[in-house]
Amino acid sequence: MRIGVIAPLVEAVPPTLYGGTERVVSNLTEELVRRGNEVTLFASGDSVTSAELVACTPRSLRLDPAAPDFVTATLFQLGDAYRRAGDFDIIHNHADWLGFPFADLVSTPTATTVHGRLDIPEIAYRYRRGAHHRLVSISHDQRRFLPEVNWIATVHNGIDVSRYSLRSQGGDYLVFLGRINPDKGPDRAVEIAERTGMRLVVAAKVDPADRDYYESYIAPLFRRSHRVEFIGEVDDAAKDQLLGGAYAYLFPIDWPEPFGITMIEAMATGTPVIATACGSVPEVLADGETGFVCHSVAEMVAAVERVPCIDRRACRQRVEQLFSTARMADGYEAVYAQLLSDQCGEARPFKAGSANGARSSAAVS
Amino acid sequence: MRIGVIAPLVEAVPPTLYGGTERVVSNLTEELVRRGNEVTLFASGDSVTSAELVACTPRSLRLDPAAPDFVTATLFQLGDAYRRAGDFDIIHNHADWLGFPFADLVSTPTATTVHGRLDIPEIAYRYRRGAHHRLVSISHDQRRFLPEVNWIATVHNGIDVSRYSLRSQGGDYLVFLGRINPDKGPDRAVEIAERTGMRLVVAAKVDPADRDYYESYIAPLFRRSHRVEFIGEVDDAAKDQLLGGAYAYLFPIDWPEPFGITMIEAMATGTPVIATACGSVPEVLADGETGFVCHSVAEMVAAVERVPCIDRRACRQRVEQLFSTARMADGYEAVYAQLLSDQCGEARPFKAGSANGARSSAAVS
Repeated sequence: MRIGVIAPLVEAVPPTLYGGTERVVSNLTEELVRRGNEVTLFASGDSVTSAELVACTPRSLRLDPAAPDFVTATLFQLGDAYRRAGDFDIIHNHADWLGFPFADLVSTPTATTVHGRLDIPEIAYRYRRGAHHRLVSISHDQRRFLPEVNWIATVHNGIDVSRYSLRSQGGDYLVFLGRINPDKGPDRAVEIAERTGMRLVVAAKVDPADRDYYESYIAPLFRRSHRVEFIGEVDDAAKDQLLGGAYAYLFPIDWPEPFGITMIEAMATGTPVIATACGSVPEVLADGETGFVCHSVAEMVAAVERVPCIDRRACRQRVEQLFSTARMADGYEAVYAQLLSDQCGEARPFKAGSANGARSSAAVS
Repeated sequence: MRIGVIAPLVEAVPPTLYGGTERVVSNLTEELVRRGNEVTLFASGDSVTSAELVACTPRSLRLDPAAPDFVTATLFQLGDAYRRAGDFDIIHNHADWLGFPFADLVSTPTATTVHGRLDIPEIAYRYRRGAHHRLVSISHDQRRFLPEVNWIATVHNGIDVSRYSLRSQGGDYLVFLGRINPDKGPDRAVEIAERTGMRLVVAAKVDPADRDYYESYIAPLFRRSHRVEFIGEVDDAAKDQLLGGAYAYLFPIDWPEPFGITMIEAMATGTPVIATACGSVPEVLADGETGFVCHSVAEMVAAVERVPCIDRRACRQRVEQLFSTARMADGYEAVYAQLLSDQCGEARPFKAGSANGARSSAAVS
């Protein structure tokens, strides 16, 4: 199948440091190529892929001071991708609602994976405005805020499990990994470390938007605690070591996270996850088997004591069974097949008379 | 001719208060309809037009607290318009660079009028990225910052002169009209009033972005001066009275304004314009005949004394000859004809093989 994949431009595909969505896009792209699909990846120029790469910006946006702003870069990327729509059987859009107005202009069907949150009114507006677009959720819970739009499948995120080392023994520290942000609960992680007397390694980025929160609230907490070691962002090798060597991975979020890829990364190394019962957490974790789904900091503190009951191999197995790249690619290939069969004869959301925006390839100027 | 016109959504077409671009779009649209064209106007739902109106938001964005943000609203508007591209011979885009990625996806040619500034690097990036798009400048000076892109014509803005009353006698006050913003030079207007001992009527809006500038710098100036009367935004009838009854219109800008429609509105009422020699000013004014093109506040103060030398009828005549809706529509009809003739046989910026995004109207989904 000829597939055009539109990746976010914020990070490279795969990202060198932080970047969950770009990691998933990379995992999926590599697996689709491995299965014999012709994949064209529209991504930042510092991406590395076995697909055909169309570099839509010289470098990824987040760490490039000369980069154009996100909207500008993404709109030109979408123009690049949709101008080539005729080269593809399917367009898989990971650039969110920004792709909606383009998808209606071409005959190639688009599937859009929603990687972000939907619980904010400004965002929900965009999905309602483009309610006929075919959406894939990355967890069942993600749909809760917007059940009325055109969800066609749930495909859980997947990772290449072979790139994570299963450690049969955990270590003596807790880990917090990702982003310093109130939604992610770094203050809760510190509280859990303090109340259990365990060491906490924090591997996280601080976005400009979160700089104030970090400086005024989190940095003082880190300084006051003797238990916290803050090491900044880590690359893949360091992450594998850090997660695999941990006693438990803390995921004390305070928002409806649509997936949470670090949970499956931790489990792939055998490390159990102690998480808040928010968003996708009850879908991703098997409570009592691969970690603990908790409703309060007190429950998370109590869960720390119960970690030795968890079989680290069961953590790994859950990822292999439910959250592998193969499983994810199976899900998306089914979505693509559905879109192509829908295309043969079913009713269209727009009638021909009002949707004949483009008539012939020869006349496109 | 069947013309799809994409208007900015910030103000209604025409605007009830401030809104130069939307006023020009309205003037052009009405004249094109009057000449027998089939015009479809993609604009905010509170617009009033003799064209077919496609309401892309319920109301114009600026004064609607429930409105979506500008980018969201405009992208869905562009989707609405380009999905109907096959209904039009020409698409006339006034929504700036945001339309570029869409224009390449359809066979109907697009002309984009650039209403904004081009002297900012972030903005220039967008035009260079879409350098093949056919652009119309609203003054010759506007091109100075970006001569290398695909300019196909200059069409000066025009107004319906019959809606402005020529007053044979001016009054005893100066006017400043538009927006309280450092670029517009309201502080210079106060200085001119102070130094000439004349009354200054300020009819202007204060945008949220300019609120600090207004509160901390301009409001105190206004309070200190006994010459200033600040009346906020005015509607068309009040503006006609205010401009027509003035001794002179002050346009003491400090930026390369691409056109400056209030200059021609003042001249249409017979009122001379005292302006800085920035941007389009030397093109719009006839120095010494319809006003004064000045290089300093001192020159503007001196110009105030020379106002009685100006023949108010000459001001009106300049607008009738160069800046009428008829003249503007002539210019755009020539642009449309050029685009249609270009379409018959000339080389395309994209070859068919890489641009066949959309193949048949019946298959658009």
